[in-house]
Amino acid sequence: MAIGRVSLVGAGPGDPELWTVRAVQRLREADLVLYDALVDADALRQTTQAQCFCVGKRAGRASVKQDTINRLMVRTARQGKRVVRLKGGDPFVFGRGAEEALALASAGISCEVVPGVTTAVAAPALAGIPVTHRGLASAFLVVAGHTGEPLAETLAAVRPNGLTLVVMMGLAGRDALAAQLISLGWARDFPAAIVCGASTPMEWQWTGRLENIATASPPEGVAGVLIVGEVVHVREALSASSAGAGVATDEVRYGRHR
Amino acid sequence: MAIGRVSLVGAGPGDPELWTVRAVQRLREADLVLYDALVDADALRQTTQAQCFCVGKRAGRASVKQDTINRLMVRTARQGKRVVRLKGGDPFVFGRGAEEALALASAGISCEVVPGVTTAVAAPALAGIPVTHRGLASAFLVVAGHTGEPLAETLAAVRPNGLTLVVMMGLAGRDALAAQLISLGWARDFPAAIVCGASTPMEWQWTGRLENIATASPPEGVAGVLIVGEVVHVREALSASSAGAGVATDEVRYGRHR
Repeated sequence: MAIGRVSLVGAGPGDPELWTVRAVQRLREADLVLYDALVDADALRQTTQAQCFCVGKRAGRASVKQDTINRLMVRTARQGKRVVRLKGGDPFVFGRGAEEALALASAGISCEVVPGVTTAVAAPALAGIPVTHRGLASAFLVVAGHTGEPLAETLAAVRPNGLTLVVMMGLAGRDALAAQLISLGWARDFPAAIVCGASTPMEWQWTGRLENIATASPPEGVAGVLIVGEVVHVREALSASSAGAGVATDEVRYGRHR
Repeated sequence: MAIGRVSLVGAGPGDPELWTVRAVQRLREADLVLYDALVDADALRQTTQAQCFCVGKRAGRASVKQDTINRLMVRTARQGKRVVRLKGGDPFVFGRGAEEALALASAGISCEVVPGVTTAVAAPALAGIPVTHRGLASAFLVVAGHTGEPLAETLAAVRPNGLTLVVMMGLAGRDALAAQLISLGWARDFPAAIVCGASTPMEWQWTGRLENIATASPPEGVAGVLIVGEVVHVREALSASSAGAGVATDEVRYGRHR
């Protein structure tokens, strides 16, 4: 029997309208869908006839072990079936997607990657914050906020105030992170923003400064992204303008921390 | 008359199957589409009845001036029409999307952002390279390769060998860039990859080392992304494995440049 197909598919930040056309096609053709907790399960069931299992961590239930996920994908593909592994955001951005691709490869099963809209870029964008902007940031650095030592090393290796920093899964440790950045030389009043549940009904946004991140009270249990950078001014300029207050173009173009 | 709607929409790396569901919806409802040169014009015409104009640089023709694009969007929106500004990749990643949003805002026209699949992540992914991978890279830095001084400053501000570097629009200056990285302390044999025309029929991939980037001969006139990082080993491991050679898991897990 021919070996089936495994597709590692990105589901974007949350709203199923941000799934790609190819993601929808693969879901329609799938026999088995293994999805993460951040994926919209109702939309999934409206899109596909496949068996669907949530393998991510949900209230009151631990996530399914990685090894179990890998074995289930291998077994199903060997039955000639089509498997979709649906992951929040993009499967190759902090998604363990490549670990799953390697596990499949070592079992002799090749898989395709269907890139998704990464939350690292989309969450700020949906809040009116571009990760790059002429005169404000010509580079952006994406890190995971839950990694402890590697995160501290990465931040220590970057000159302060010079680029946009996007911290994924970093809300729990946001106070310590802000303190660390300030101790590394980032300006206390450097602009910061938090976006939770981007593109979902639970969307929640906050903007402020590094020094007052502790005053933000994001909702519990909703995944969020922390953005540190002068690009946060763009959101403020867009809001001011749509409120009829005009755009502070000088600040938006040249920043205040150079 | 009510003011129309302007949507800044990301078209992803090239293949229209990587458009989002919302992008397709907005295109179907549009009266006017202004699109960049990297967008698939045939797919566009099959999707929408709108008037479509390419405003990007094409063979033998300069790009339309930014100011002209802005004025056209404002004028059309004021006629109560629906405008889609369709950009390659994500509109807020080196896409001047925020500049257009600010121009619209200062004319009293609000716009929505429809995030797209960014080429910064998708081009490596489609070549089997994750921008992050446990043990190899816990952060990735995205820069534009054509910016001269800002690029040099950004690279000088980052400790060598510690993260994944994604250089967009950097193929023309790749030899100078590799020399600069080596002079900054990046290992000569640090893994590097080039992916051009990701997800299009012109897709072209190369992997090697920083020191032999000059030997790569990417096709002329196709946009490309340069990736520098140990994550390139993942692609090699995936290829070796699908060729039956087994996966060099130690190297993939722990790297060789620590």
